[in-house]
Amino acid sequence: MLTKSSSLMRLVGELKKLPGVGERTALRLAFHLLKSPHNLTALAETLCEVRDRVHPCSICFAITEDDPCAICSGNRDGTTICVVENSQDLMALERSNAWHGVYHVLEGAISPLSGIGPASLRITELLNRVETGGISEVVIATNFTVEGEATALYLTKVLKPLNVRVTRLAHGIPLGSDIEFVDAATVQWALQGRNEL
Amino acid sequence: MLTKSSSLMRLVGELKKLPGVGERTALRLAFHLLKSPHNLTALAETLCEVRDRVHPCSICFAITEDDPCAICSGNRDGTTICVVENSQDLMALERSNAWHGVYHVLEGAISPLSGIGPASLRITELLNRVETGGISEVVIATNFTVEGEATALYLTKVLKPLNVRVTRLAHGIPLGSDIEFVDAATVQWALQGRNEL
Repeated sequence: MLTKSSSLMRLVGELKKLPGVGERTALRLAFHLLKSPHNLTALAETLCEVRDRVHPCSICFAITEDDPCAICSGNRDGTTICVVENSQDLMALERSNAWHGVYHVLEGAISPLSGIGPASLRITELLNRVETGGISEVVIATNFTVEGEATALYLTKVLKPLNVRVTRLAHGIPLGSDIEFVDAATVQWALQGRNEL
Repeated sequence: MLTKSSSLMRLVGELKKLPGVGERTALRLAFHLLKSPHNLTALAETLCEVRDRVHPCSICFAITEDDPCAICSGNRDGTTICVVENSQDLMALERSNAWHGVYHVLEGAISPLSGIGPASLRITELLNRVETGGISEVVIATNFTVEGEATALYLTKVLKPLNVRVTRLAHGIPLGSDIEFVDAATVQWALQGRNEL
């Protein structure tokens, strides 16, 4: 019999800490892993590898295994920096294949309610990079949420005095959208930002 | 930058093998773990513990850390055996607190389409236990699916000649059900198995 103290129940407890995983899902995952010891071992090993090898890049703070990361050390345009909230956002921008500059990961967004102020983010490091010189443009790609917009506003305020061009990702109608179902604020932004054809 | 060969991508690959976890969920889980190194380490450790400690009981084949398991070695009624398909079913029966005998885990059910015949299950071991003597009743608690019913039928056929009482869990209306919405076959079973009040 499996008592609450058994290792399987501890595994269920650990799995339950994952987002979107409850008691039943955790049990299902645990039994699934138990049935395939090969996958279980592989998962345990990759977890340890990730813990030991993955860390933030010392320049841009994107998660990486090398230091500096492949983007910072590669032949990218080092004069333009795209500022993102986290490494997931960086990966989304990389998937678009549309950015050829470097990045700066803030590791969060300003959120006074959660006690996250500018000092908790990698803003000093960003300012240092810009002050060191050679930067022509900073593209702010924080999320279009209250926190992301607040962060963008703050960054604009502190970056402008450094004589650098500060831009923001375009607001507008997403690809494949039916204008009928797009929210009013987005339509308003799209109209204001309309382009000559 | 994270390339496909990095340990994080390998972790995503391993997480994707879990039931109900796709690419996006795996990425979300991986980044969640990366943000809490303590949970990541705990998960890796419990995975290794489960792999090293958990194994089937040599008597009833329920998964256990001790051998024989706590049920087989405890003060349960060893003359009645409840036969289940897997350890999850055993745990469900234990949660009911209604069974005071021991168990026998078949590790599956007869399913000719998946190539699982009686020889793939722990049926020989069950017959050995019954033949050794001292068993008065075998309760068949396989699932009420095509495979479970086929297994129950097969078990009845091989157990009957051993002069042991063979019973099956009752079919009927589940607790809290509205009869209006219960399927016809279940209502039919419930009527046939009606009890005197």
